[in-house]
Amino acid sequence: MTDSTISDPSPSSAPPVRSWWGWGAADQALSDAECTALGKLIPGAADTPLPVPDVTALALPPSRLRPPSALAPLMSAAPQDRASHTYGKAYRDVLRALAGDFAAAPDQVVRPRTEQHVVDVLDWAAEADVAVVPYGAGSSVVGGVEYRAHPRRGVVSLDLSALDRVLEIDRVSRAARIQAGALGPRLEAGLRPHGLTLRHFPQSFEFSTLGGWLATRAGGHYATLFTHIDDLVQSLRVVTPVGVNESLRLPGSGAGPSPDRLFLGSEGTLGVITEAWMRLQERPRYKASATVLFNDVHAAMEAVRALAQSGLHPANCRLLDPGEAALAGVAQGGESVLVLGVESAHVPVDGRLAELLTLARDHGGTVAPTDSGGGDGAAWTWRSAFLRMPYLRDALARMSVVTETFETACTWDRAPELYETVRGRLADVVREVTGAAGTVNCRFTHVYPDGPAPYYTVIAPGRRGAEVAMWDEIKSAAMDLLHDLGATVTHHHAVGRDHRPGYDRQRPEPFALALRAAKQALDPAGILNPGVLIDPAPRASTDPAMTG
Amino acid sequence: MTDSTISDPSPSSAPPVRSWWGWGAADQALSDAECTALGKLIPGAADTPLPVPDVTALALPPSRLRPPSALAPLMSAAPQDRASHTYGKAYRDVLRALAGDFAAAPDQVVRPRTEQHVVDVLDWAAEADVAVVPYGAGSSVVGGVEYRAHPRRGVVSLDLSALDRVLEIDRVSRAARIQAGALGPRLEAGLRPHGLTLRHFPQSFEFSTLGGWLATRAGGHYATLFTHIDDLVQSLRVVTPVGVNESLRLPGSGAGPSPDRLFLGSEGTLGVITEAWMRLQERPRYKASATVLFNDVHAAMEAVRALAQSGLHPANCRLLDPGEAALAGVAQGGESVLVLGVESAHVPVDGRLAELLTLARDHGGTVAPTDSGGGDGAAWTWRSAFLRMPYLRDALARMSVVTETFETACTWDRAPELYETVRGRLADVVREVTGAAGTVNCRFTHVYPDGPAPYYTVIAPGRRGAEVAMWDEIKSAAMDLLHDLGATVTHHHAVGRDHRPGYDRQRPEPFALALRAAKQALDPAGILNPGVLIDPAPRASTDPAMTG
Repeated sequence: MTDSTISDPSPSSAPPVRSWWGWGAADQALSDAECTALGKLIPGAADTPLPVPDVTALALPPSRLRPPSALAPLMSAAPQDRASHTYGKAYRDVLRALAGDFAAAPDQVVRPRTEQHVVDVLDWAAEADVAVVPYGAGSSVVGGVEYRAHPRRGVVSLDLSALDRVLEIDRVSRAARIQAGALGPRLEAGLRPHGLTLRHFPQSFEFSTLGGWLATRAGGHYATLFTHIDDLVQSLRVVTPVGVNESLRLPGSGAGPSPDRLFLGSEGTLGVITEAWMRLQERPRYKASATVLFNDVHAAMEAVRALAQSGLHPANCRLLDPGEAALAGVAQGGESVLVLGVESAHVPVDGRLAELLTLARDHGGTVAPTDSGGGDGAAWTWRSAFLRMPYLRDALARMSVVTETFETACTWDRAPELYETVRGRLADVVREVTGAAGTVNCRFTHVYPDGPAPYYTVIAPGRRGAEVAMWDEIKSAAMDLLHDLGATVTHHHAVGRDHRPGYDRQRPEPFALALRAAKQALDPAGILNPGVLIDPAPRASTDPAMTG
Repeated sequence: MTDSTISDPSPSSAPPVRSWWGWGAADQALSDAECTALGKLIPGAADTPLPVPDVTALALPPSRLRPPSALAPLMSAAPQDRASHTYGKAYRDVLRALAGDFAAAPDQVVRPRTEQHVVDVLDWAAEADVAVVPYGAGSSVVGGVEYRAHPRRGVVSLDLSALDRVLEIDRVSRAARIQAGALGPRLEAGLRPHGLTLRHFPQSFEFSTLGGWLATRAGGHYATLFTHIDDLVQSLRVVTPVGVNESLRLPGSGAGPSPDRLFLGSEGTLGVITEAWMRLQERPRYKASATVLFNDVHAAMEAVRALAQSGLHPANCRLLDPGEAALAGVAQGGESVLVLGVESAHVPVDGRLAELLTLARDHGGTVAPTDSGGGDGAAWTWRSAFLRMPYLRDALARMSVVTETFETACTWDRAPELYETVRGRLADVVREVTGAAGTVNCRFTHVYPDGPAPYYTVIAPGRRGAEVAMWDEIKSAAMDLLHDLGATVTHHHAVGRDHRPGYDRQRPEPFALALRAAKQALDPAGILNPGVLIDPAPRASTDPAMTG
């Protein structure tokens, strides 16, 4: 669900109480009445919302693990802990939580308070043949934190949220050493007094952690230039089952393949990232934004390509197709909408914005008048809708509406065909699966000189009890389409377990061999996040730690 | 020897005849008289140049390999081929070539004309237990193309220079599919008619290949932003002993650890890169440059840090310390010299240069008057000296002067200490080893927001016959210093065999295990560039293909 227009949220004193079944803060969820009202906007939606179960009354399988005494103080088998750590926050996760399906609940949730605790947990798990699922804040939308591999094995969810401090700041080099469990607001609050910022603002910012961003190659604030967290990494510290991996703090290096790049995107399968030195920026002093309308979506794509290839590096360069623009409430006349933003910590940006707008006009765009009331017009409207979106998604899920997103990237030469083909064929699939017309919208979240990252939203009425199966069928068709078109199975949502079919086809086979060998070398017992990215080598099953 | 100020050389019709013992074009080498004159500038240098042996009269060990009939037409055991493929172009390589030391000559040089030939060579080599040393144009300065591992094993140098075409251009996505054996000028000549450029201009540009740049993470034109070739890669095609690895053409992806990043920097140990889709740029239309003088080198470093952290992305931002500036002939009064350049394909750059100069002045810099005669004053003088440098190095080598470079990178907080410590202690080492004061200069070749890449030059009179031993002693001390200071053993010269001691200390141990496992998975027979980066797992020696 990672995405990129949150502009530097203000510091929150304490993190809000989290929803155990759905997105974000518990008190932000829509009421039953709001859900019902929302459902009326989707023809064919249910009349009443699915009830939210009582978390204390869930039928959880008995915990199969007895914590070792040394680790017992860090562990919890409380129903709310186990339930809230069973799933990520995908649509299918929310539906299964609402259905009270917790067969896959971890046996224990362990919350290390020091890096040594992480080492101890991995040592114990390898010895006891227990699977370890690293858990930041659980915002995965690809099954990244949900154990599915071996039904008889014990499983712990390794929750890193207590490792949440900014440990050290190097003002001269503009870098900070930060623990992996820090949520976005916590991390930024630690940097703000120094005039610095990481400026990595995924849509999940409030409810995701640095370690999660690193392990999944998250996509952040910038629509151009440094889009993924990868480029903001100076060095990583990773606890692997065979030892701690710490890279040198370097601004650049050519000493062999990058050690960090092996762990970036390893999604908890090779080790547990415990801290990182991150490259920071000064807080932007100059900002400007504008909205451009296009009557023709293909002209809009050409415009965005020109902007992406201009070397002008807009901070925001988000193209909403007509359906997406209508859904977000920023255009209702069939226009495509380009939301542009420019910023700098050092120099005024009005000139740069003017150059971008000239390019946009040259490609048929019309610059919208600024809405002085709402900050910056469509950009403001869009941002508000964007932050509210996951809560609306949950509400629609409760109304048995099938509503989810997926994203990809491809080169510009294939972008128009990809845009049309995926929208067209997927609309057919949605109709076949749900019996309704449904909606398939697209926006470009990030753009590169060589191609865009299209992000699709699907909305259609589902059949109560069959919502997950319906979405899975639609998603499977989407993955096939992306594969046929040579596009990536994910630009920034990661692979997890849900994208394995697409990833297994996309990953070059020699690289698969190398990755499997690396996994075997670093995690010989195969305890780390089994089922994610790659299957470990076959192994014998022993269950010394099982109690039930 | 990679470095970065060559501005877009004009297309050459045919590559020049290469020197078999020294740098670059044979006809650019200094004459005996020129060597003698140059030697007089270094107190303590020899009076007469070392003679250049007759390549046809070299005492090469007999070739131990009989080419298989299918590959015989691609193979050569001619003395000139074997001699010219024995070494790279480091100082110690030149000295050993001049000494006629060719004990390590490859048994055969094989020149594939198709990718299938590469597959066939690797299949044969694995079967016949022959080591394969991938060879682009042999510009390694770290022992990357020199076989040293097992004295009784047959060795082929796999020369990719016949795979030198630009195969395909995607104007829309600004990308091209290019064969790995293409030399810089050849590659740019193929792109120029389309108004495009790779704009990767290492110092070795004329005499190094795309595949070599990719395998070694070469540093190119830009002093900021995209410094290494890594970021210009859209997808790679790599022949490994277990199959061909081809990644999708993508502008960005978050699907697991990047497959390409495992092969970038693998230096021929995991596979042979045969082609790549590379990200291109439009040719710059606007350029501006300037020279700034500083009386205090520490003030100059602070200025460069401010520029690197300004977000203004100068294309060139090279700081020469007083010794380096004097050596290059751009300042003789003890000043440090900053050579600045800005360019764009799209918008005028004078404003950006003015902003950079303001920052430089704020830190105590004085902008030098433009020399209208010589292009752009110090920048021009510097560039001329820069391109001529490797030929001068060879001439000094013939005069038994110890003269070589090494480079590193560190964060800004440690940069002043690193600058002073390395210069100071290394001056002591040079004195101890050579008995003369010698010269230890430094420049910053690339600068990042979080740190510089310092590049050192050492010049001192050597003792005839002991030049290599003397340099090795100095270099070893340099590697120890860099290690103690937490700096990388190489920023863009790669690891090869010469940097193994430093790299082995720097590489995190879990990553070493992963890399060794990947090597074993992709190259189970251990034939690819043994001795580079990492030692393969121990293996039994069998010599079925040996003939002598």
